[in-house]
Amino acid sequence: MRFTLQHTDGAARAGLLQTDRGSVETPVFMPVGTQGSVKAIEPRELREVGAQIILGNTYHLYLRPGVELIEKTGGLHGFVGWNGPMLTDSGGYQVFSLSDLRGIDPDGVHFKSHHDGSVHRFTPESVVDIQRSLGSDIMMVLDECPPYPCDEEYAERSNQLTLKWAARCLDRFSATTAKYGAGQSLFAIVQGSVYGRIRETSARALVSLDFDGYAIGGLSVGEPVSDMYAMTELCAALLPAQKPRYLMGVGTPQNLLESIGRGIDMFDCVLPTRNGRNAMVFTRRGRLNLRNAKFTDDLAPVDPECGCYACRNFSRAYLRHLFKAREILGLQLATIHNLSFYLWLMNAARDAILGDRFGAWKESALRDLASEDQAEAH
Amino acid sequence: MRFTLQHTDGAARAGLLQTDRGSVETPVFMPVGTQGSVKAIEPRELREVGAQIILGNTYHLYLRPGVELIEKTGGLHGFVGWNGPMLTDSGGYQVFSLSDLRGIDPDGVHFKSHHDGSVHRFTPESVVDIQRSLGSDIMMVLDECPPYPCDEEYAERSNQLTLKWAARCLDRFSATTAKYGAGQSLFAIVQGSVYGRIRETSARALVSLDFDGYAIGGLSVGEPVSDMYAMTELCAALLPAQKPRYLMGVGTPQNLLESIGRGIDMFDCVLPTRNGRNAMVFTRRGRLNLRNAKFTDDLAPVDPECGCYACRNFSRAYLRHLFKAREILGLQLATIHNLSFYLWLMNAARDAILGDRFGAWKESALRDLASEDQAEAH
Repeated sequence: MRFTLQHTDGAARAGLLQTDRGSVETPVFMPVGTQGSVKAIEPRELREVGAQIILGNTYHLYLRPGVELIEKTGGLHGFVGWNGPMLTDSGGYQVFSLSDLRGIDPDGVHFKSHHDGSVHRFTPESVVDIQRSLGSDIMMVLDECPPYPCDEEYAERSNQLTLKWAARCLDRFSATTAKYGAGQSLFAIVQGSVYGRIRETSARALVSLDFDGYAIGGLSVGEPVSDMYAMTELCAALLPAQKPRYLMGVGTPQNLLESIGRGIDMFDCVLPTRNGRNAMVFTRRGRLNLRNAKFTDDLAPVDPECGCYACRNFSRAYLRHLFKAREILGLQLATIHNLSFYLWLMNAARDAILGDRFGAWKESALRDLASEDQAEAH
Repeated sequence: MRFTLQHTDGAARAGLLQTDRGSVETPVFMPVGTQGSVKAIEPRELREVGAQIILGNTYHLYLRPGVELIEKTGGLHGFVGWNGPMLTDSGGYQVFSLSDLRGIDPDGVHFKSHHDGSVHRFTPESVVDIQRSLGSDIMMVLDECPPYPCDEEYAERSNQLTLKWAARCLDRFSATTAKYGAGQSLFAIVQGSVYGRIRETSARALVSLDFDGYAIGGLSVGEPVSDMYAMTELCAALLPAQKPRYLMGVGTPQNLLESIGRGIDMFDCVLPTRNGRNAMVFTRRGRLNLRNAKFTDDLAPVDPECGCYACRNFSRAYLRHLFKAREILGLQLATIHNLSFYLWLMNAARDAILGDRFGAWKESALRDLASEDQAEAH
């Protein structure tokens, strides 16, 4: 993997991430394909809406369908029918949030599957091995993601463990090779909750280990948005300019723009897909809840400025009807639109950065994004 | 609408149905878009899988979203984003099967909505008016579809009512015009349960009224398949050669081939879409239940001879994983495949008819269709 920082505009960055499976222009949003499918959208439609790279969840895929089957198909790309770049997380986040966690020890974690209660163990080495078998283009280290709130002492101890695990992941990564021809890279994860001092320790230690890229984890877990932005800004400033920066699990369109303005290159979040399946669509003028009665006979497209398949062919009234009638097509169209919007937003941000007008563009976009939300409140 | 009988091979027919919204080659299978959407598939994908004409349900659309909204959008085609030919049923079948039926009288039916219990009334005239508002290319008369079993006396009385209603529908049809420019036609429905004498009365009476086409209703409602075929054959033989013949609500691939062999041109059924959403896929070699453990690591496509998007890009193992993981993409891919299969089957039947080899082709296709089903039983 090669990352080229193409342009900066203040702290905002435009870059190019080149993998053996294709290039990714940043800033980039990565649709989340939790269990080997971005929910309610086909791989060819992911291309159509502008997705350059998608995410898979190691925890889910390890439990079902299992690594053995995915190896048989030549890796996750072949199994799920996506031949572009793919990032997998380490599974750590889901172990701590989804499973019945049985215990953390210095060597790894034991957990019970949320499907059938079977007991499993992840270690820094095993999650690298699993991701080697998945064949993702970007792999993530095993980390502990502390909950919010968490006291400083816990955050400190947790971060020490995360740093040790990161070093062990890197060792395993260096001692192994890709299984399917295409190169793989490994990103570290900066933790430290909302404590600047710990975030700084974490970032400096990980940078000294020289990973291919750096993620900022443990944010958007319930902390005030001001803390999220402060930690993002602090971490980004400590990370090397020539490596990609990935803010994990964030967020709203506003969150993305503010974080790009603080130097972030990569994002993932279930918001556009999950909210879409709940009839909430994102537009340039803010969010719309299509279940709202005011859309009953609204023949406008979801977002008149959007060129996606849903907006070119269907009305808000029709989408509302589909949701009221529980038709699967409603989920499909809202997903196509919401991802189109998120990916358009990233492209527009990139264009603004390349044109040295990110600050003004961001303010204007944020005003637009607030207009419908305000109208709803009146 | 113009129907041209292009070729016959025994009783089997190849025809061309021309509407203002496009032509339909017969024999044809019409995917069912109950509530204004063929479930789990996009209109552009309907085109891709080869759909020429789709079906909408008057009962459902009348109740939700209602005729007023559909009129505002210039009819059902604009509302649902399908610009090809469309057929709507009269709503009668759903009134008798879904609603809390409040009573039939000579003038029409009262029923309670299955959504909210509100009371509504359909008359022969009102269902024509509703379908004028929907703007379907082919409209159906209001009929009573007797349940199975039903005694001969009930079937006789019911059929007399259906015949009176058909005449009234035709009167209303003749006294009104299409609302959106494109012409509309009206099909009658032959009823009579499993009683040949009543079927004959019904067919002769309706033929004398000179409808644009003729449906055979009240079959595939629980009667033995031999009765279904016998009634189909009897009715088809009584219907005019130069008008299209539509066997309502039928059926399996085998049912379709047997009925084409008895002179049927048009079919609709929820089987390919509903069964697909339940992980049951149709192939040239029979049905597969993708939940079956034997497909866990089966890397073959659903049907190796199929060229649909699902079969070109994904394995049985992946589809099985999607169903096990309750991923919506599983419903989408199974629907795309099953409709592709049904529409391929109709095209293959048409080719065989045009080539005067329908009988031999049908026997061969039926043998193939039985092979996997037999394998399952061993």
